[in-house]
Amino acid sequence: MRTMLVTGGNGFLGSRFIHELLTKYPAYQIVAIDHEAEDVPELLRPLLACKRYAFHRVDIRNNEAVEQVFEQYDISEVAHFAAKTHVGESMRNPGIFAETNVLGTFHVLDAARKHWMNGPFEPKPAYSGSRFLHISTDQVYGPRAEGFADETFKYDPISPYAASKASSDLMVSGFHESYGMDTVILQATNVFGPHQQNDKLIPIIMKKALSGSTIPVYSGGEDVHDWLYIDDFWRAADAVFHLGNAGETYLAAGTALKTIEIVERLCQTLDRHFPGNDSYLSRIRFVEPADGAKAPHRFAVSADKLHQQLEFTPETDVERGIQETVDWMLSKKRIWEVV
Amino acid sequence: MRTMLVTGGNGFLGSRFIHELLTKYPAYQIVAIDHEAEDVPELLRPLLACKRYAFHRVDIRNNEAVEQVFEQYDISEVAHFAAKTHVGESMRNPGIFAETNVLGTFHVLDAARKHWMNGPFEPKPAYSGSRFLHISTDQVYGPRAEGFADETFKYDPISPYAASKASSDLMVSGFHESYGMDTVILQATNVFGPHQQNDKLIPIIMKKALSGSTIPVYSGGEDVHDWLYIDDFWRAADAVFHLGNAGETYLAAGTALKTIEIVERLCQTLDRHFPGNDSYLSRIRFVEPADGAKAPHRFAVSADKLHQQLEFTPETDVERGIQETVDWMLSKKRIWEVV
Repeated sequence: MRTMLVTGGNGFLGSRFIHELLTKYPAYQIVAIDHEAEDVPELLRPLLACKRYAFHRVDIRNNEAVEQVFEQYDISEVAHFAAKTHVGESMRNPGIFAETNVLGTFHVLDAARKHWMNGPFEPKPAYSGSRFLHISTDQVYGPRAEGFADETFKYDPISPYAASKASSDLMVSGFHESYGMDTVILQATNVFGPHQQNDKLIPIIMKKALSGSTIPVYSGGEDVHDWLYIDDFWRAADAVFHLGNAGETYLAAGTALKTIEIVERLCQTLDRHFPGNDSYLSRIRFVEPADGAKAPHRFAVSADKLHQQLEFTPETDVERGIQETVDWMLSKKRIWEVV
Repeated sequence: MRTMLVTGGNGFLGSRFIHELLTKYPAYQIVAIDHEAEDVPELLRPLLACKRYAFHRVDIRNNEAVEQVFEQYDISEVAHFAAKTHVGESMRNPGIFAETNVLGTFHVLDAARKHWMNGPFEPKPAYSGSRFLHISTDQVYGPRAEGFADETFKYDPISPYAASKASSDLMVSGFHESYGMDTVILQATNVFGPHQQNDKLIPIIMKKALSGSTIPVYSGGEDVHDWLYIDDFWRAADAVFHLGNAGETYLAAGTALKTIEIVERLCQTLDRHFPGNDSYLSRIRFVEPADGAKAPHRFAVSADKLHQQLEFTPETDVERGIQETVDWMLSKKRIWEVV
């Protein structure tokens, strides 16, 4: 039995990872930590009585608390999801992003080093196969007018969030180079799907549409992001953790879309579910943010490495992904909660 | 009068920068901070009574103390030198490097943002010309078997020290991209010269040689580093601060040498000063570190950008730089302090 620490275990990505890992691999037990203990994610509620799952409320900014978890449970693997992720919030309060995403990542890494290693390039025998999976983002490469960034590109973050994630990636790969720790990094694009947070694009658009208000779209909807469905994210994380090469970084991507394309797909889906006199499309308004118009950004990356080295291909078409997300929101009557 | 905060003001590079800046530019006053207040650097002792110079003992890990300095002195410029720099120490205690070099840099950056900016891309009118100079290292690019890294290369740190500096660079350039702050980064190679710390290669070799012991050299002396004389470092920092383009990074380099070449030059210089029966060269011993032999590393960078954009060329030949360093050590009788 291997004991894996999952940080940020109550988050959208972390909770899904825990759910799938415990289901697929009987040989793991999981210790999840999160800075929030309320609102146990739906996916994890059935696990509360499971002996292979334990939860502790720990903020990774507290290095002593993190080290204590390693000791108490004899942690042999790490999947590090914990991070502040909201770009807009990072602009207003970058401090908590530096503390959580950079210093917090350092705390988890260094606790693993102390628990697993006798010295540089000398793992303790019991931990010679121990691996540290770090979850990061394609935003570390910044936007580009054309072409696709890959893992060889220079980091060029344009938000405090992206800068903090780029910094944490360097901490992780630096620990591989400095100490010979077995680390892998998964840089995922914009993950969406059932159980996602209410403060992301799809839930916000649905809330606006169904509450009868207009649907504000910035930068003419011309911003481009890559969208990765949660099922495919899990498969990519599974592949990178179990098959990835030590010290390497892998980008996982789905479908690159303009924001307006996502919004239009959502409106069309809602037109089928809740047809009105007019299409929801008629409620779209192009607006400028309070701090002035910005040129649209295009974030585009290539996931060729993950495909070629680990034979990973996304399986969920973006249309179906959006449909599943909408279905989940409606089936759970979550839509009434947010309207 | 512009008021510049110099962090790490008591260090080798910071104290030289302060000394030269106050001499060359009458329009600046300087507020220096350092986590150590004892052992005022020789260069700064004459400044203690100067009204254009103030010193406060502040650890940049303490964000409130840093913010207080910005308020108290109405800081309009920053030259950020404060950093933990010893690679070997970073391997043994990476935590203080993450806290000082990464989070500490964030604290200084964020204090500048709060003091200078009304919002993203909206500097307060009084600070529209304010600039943040960040001092970094060529080690962020990692070693390479051949060729020269330049500013477009991907960061690839191989020590916790280098990882922490690479992270701090991303924080700085991230603040330029995110908030439109005027930042410049100077990545200097291995700076040497009068007033350098006792725990660096040249003083250590001199101490060994003059105390009659053997001179241990690791990795067959085949490690390659670039050596930049302190006078040239100051000139590069002056050029980057006053002429560099906002948001840009500049590498400053001197002469790339194998460690054995530096050691041999030192021995030959000492042979002239303190001739014995045998040359100091005969005391050189190639040894393996306790944790096993390592392949020699070659750190090599191109400073073409600094040359082409800002017309900077190092002026001090490495031979003369070493001679000046040795002369200073002997003239100050510092050699007797360390033997």
